[in-house]
Amino acid sequence: MPRAAITSQDDLTDALIHVVVEHGLDAVSIRAVARQAGVSIGTVQYHFATKDDLLLAAYRRAIDRVTARARSVAQRAPGPRAYIRSLLRELLPLDDQREAELRVAVAFTARSVCSPQLTELYTRGYGALVGAVADALRQAVERGEAAADVDPQRDATQAVALADGLAWQLLCAPSVLSADATVGALDAHLDRLLPR
Amino acid sequence: MPRAAITSQDDLTDALIHVVVEHGLDAVSIRAVARQAGVSIGTVQYHFATKDDLLLAAYRRAIDRVTARARSVAQRAPGPRAYIRSLLRELLPLDDQREAELRVAVAFTARSVCSPQLTELYTRGYGALVGAVADALRQAVERGEAAADVDPQRDATQAVALADGLAWQLLCAPSVLSADATVGALDAHLDRLLPR
Repeated sequence: MPRAAITSQDDLTDALIHVVVEHGLDAVSIRAVARQAGVSIGTVQYHFATKDDLLLAAYRRAIDRVTARARSVAQRAPGPRAYIRSLLRELLPLDDQREAELRVAVAFTARSVCSPQLTELYTRGYGALVGAVADALRQAVERGEAAADVDPQRDATQAVALADGLAWQLLCAPSVLSADATVGALDAHLDRLLPR
Repeated sequence: MPRAAITSQDDLTDALIHVVVEHGLDAVSIRAVARQAGVSIGTVQYHFATKDDLLLAAYRRAIDRVTARARSVAQRAPGPRAYIRSLLRELLPLDDQREAELRVAVAFTARSVCSPQLTELYTRGYGALVGAVADALRQAVERGEAAADVDPQRDATQAVALADGLAWQLLCAPSVLSADATVGALDAHLDRLLPR
């Protein structure tokens, strides 16, 4: 029985995500992932021919997780404002799980600037997020719950950029930007778009 | 005369920035920088003992350039709104120079998540930018040019996060986010804070 059979692709991508979170994208190698997963280098190579294949699979897995959580959030939200707020809060590193995901996303997004395959993945995820927020803003406009000057597409772009920027800055400059200030800045923006 | 004397540290950090812009941070090595600068590996090592020293110097140089441009912008702005708008537009990849700087900043910021030295540099730059925008918002409040609900510190945090998020998304997803939509989203936000 080949050793590869006892390790799934998901185990290996999880091991890669762990390496990225702990040591950064620079530290990723077939060898480091094998060590982290407790398998041989050959086992990793059995599933992923190159480091790039492995990176792509891990990035996909991180996006899938955030998307699944966003879907579950959507089902529980009582209206457009709560929906948008929950969705955008999923992007902020407010707990260990989201911080780990954000570290992975930041590392992969930075890499995507030089990789057409990663750019395509990033663009798809980004487009879906802006689309979901824009739909919710349209609903809010129909229900008379939006400020008079709301333009759903433009303001969805704005809200997603704000949440992404805040997430990044909370991760990188926690000594000057607190979690409370981050949530406060996001909520104040939503108050302007969708007054309570 | 040692070969090192004919190459300045700035030449080498510029060569590194060129490598990052063209091939990403992964491609950076003492060897790649030496090749790009047209000097020997020993020359690079004469100025920078390690790859990390070189990266730190290049990151500092990129920050210095943005800061210098921001200062010159500040001197020309007729009032707080124009000042904040110009300052934040400097962050957007609206021309080749700013796009190159942003690529470098993204790569280094992603790396800063795992480097205390880079985190300190990032935090200092971020804090200075938020402080400058907050000061301008305070001035606007004093001059009666701000919306009634403006909170200078919170809204500076918000505006800088928005600009950073937009910059990043325009760089990474240009097929769904146009330069016009980026500027439109930023201007619409400033219109809410500082109505014309």
